Amino acid sequence: MSREEQQRRASSWFSDLQTQIIKSLEEFEKSSTFLRKSWERPGGGGGTMAILEGDVFEKAGVNVSTVFGEFSEELRTQIPGAEDNPYFWASGLSIVVHPRSPHIPIVHMNTRMIITEKQWFGGGADLTPCFPVDQDTKDFHEAFKKACDRFDETYYPTFKQAADEYFYLPHRQEARGVGGIFYDYLNTGSWEKDFAFTQEVGRTFASIYPELVRRHVNTPWTDLERTAQLKKRGRYVEFNLLYDRGTLFGLKTAGNIEAILMSLPPLVQWAA
Amino acid sequence: MSREEQQRRASSWFSDLQTQIIKSLEEFEKSSTFLRKSWERPGGGGGTMAILEGDVFEKAGVNVSTVFGEFSEELRTQIPGAEDNPYFWASGLSIVVHPRSPHIPIVHMNTRMIITEKQWFGGGADLTPCFPVDQDTKDFHEAFKKACDRFDETYYPTFKQAADEYFYLPHRQEARGVGGIFYDYLNTGSWEKDFAFTQEVGRTFASIYPELVRRHVNTPWTDLERTAQLKKRGRYVEFNLLYDRGTLFGLKTAGNIEAILMSLPPLVQWAA
Repeated sequence: MSREEQQRRASSWFSDLQTQIIKSLEEFEKSSTFLRKSWERPGGGGGTMAILEGDVFEKAGVNVSTVFGEFSEELRTQIPGAEDNPYFWASGLSIVVHPRSPHIPIVHMNTRMIITEKQWFGGGADLTPCFPVDQDTKDFHEAFKKACDRFDETYYPTFKQAADEYFYLPHRQEARGVGGIFYDYLNTGSWEKDFAFTQEVGRTFASIYPELVRRHVNTPWTDLERTAQLKKRGRYVEFNLLYDRGTLFGLKTAGNIEAILMSLPPLVQWAA
Repeated sequence: MSREEQQRRASSWFSDLQTQIIKSLEEFEKSSTFLRKSWERPGGGGGTMAILEGDVFEKAGVNVSTVFGEFSEELRTQIPGAEDNPYFWASGLSIVVHPRSPHIPIVHMNTRMIITEKQWFGGGADLTPCFPVDQDTKDFHEAFKKACDRFDETYYPTFKQAADEYFYLPHRQEARGVGGIFYDYLNTGSWEKDFAFTQEVGRTFASIYPELVRRHVNTPWTDLERTAQLKKRGRYVEFNLLYDRGTLFGLKTAGNIEAILMSLPPLVQWAA
């Protein structure tokens, strides 16, 4: 299959998954729906952000983008395969959900296909409950373990470990949440296999997260629990602005600010 | 005068100014007072944070620290005079005020004395109103112009320009506020003169900010104005975590997390 056909299939998949996830999150809402906003990137390409401000999901963003162009001098030395040829193409889906209830975990999922002189897939998902529930954590991890094991038995231990290392706030010596999986520069030599794995990660997210939401959507909360949640969100902001590669990459490639900072929670509190 | 005597005088001044500023901010509060918290730095030195959660000042932090020790390998190449000798001593005062009223501007002021193989003063102050008022902006700038002009007529234009460049969010192509002054690596050859200038910057802040607060402390505000303020605070968070040298320096030298992140606003909102 031609490179162009691979690009077409990957970007179509990300759009299809966006539609599917939007639909499954909207099912929890009585009257709120996602607002879609398309944007173009001056250097090439663009995307579609979909943002929900609802009763169950205080802020949920599901963003698809397919961008291409040339890396800046600075990035050329940092991105594999960009040293001699600055051209890149990148397509991906990125999701962050900030529920209103402190009992429903914050979640993030992101999958992408990148082309430079090299080509690879990357992605991950991680769960950030304010009040961790063992069964939720167990089920979230098991869902991704199952997805990984279908492709390669080394994937899960490797990608879980990578998530534990990546979703971590060194300045607080604190994990962002309860982890998940994280992978990057995945190229086994079979584009079909790597694409199928990336699709499986997306499907797994689309199936497990609504299940976790359902478990807690009717649980009431106290003001104290809400305050704890707003403070937990502060840690999320610290992670995203200090360490998140996607955020810093986006800001450096002059991506769409709204889409890049979509991950920031709607309301946040820092302790005095 | 010996180096030790200079260190003693500088750190005493920062403590005295802390006391004075605490007193002048507390005068606006009916019942709230600053809580003082001392902390020690594992590598050497420590400080005293003073934090107020009040009716007029939703969160105000006035932090003094005097720390010393050795820079990490990474910082040695970045800090003047640390290449061959990693020993440093640093003393300073840092203030951030987040008023409850959207009509009272956020303010930041910071002055410091640093010793490596070299020795210098640095500091600055900048005003971040949610709804800028021409007269406030004019008076804030004029106060610092007067302070600068007393020492060197090149100071004000240079330091104001530096503030405009420093207090800027490139990813939003947006100034953080209306500016102020910013200076670093100040060593004219006369420690007395540079210390006197740094004291003057502190005194100027201590005199002009309470005046601006007084102008707006009785002005009521609407929910819409409050929301605009919470969003403006979001920009403040973005600046501090993405660009602020003091914050990033503090996180890298394993300073006191609470004191370093004291600058973050109490409650923040990001638009969906």
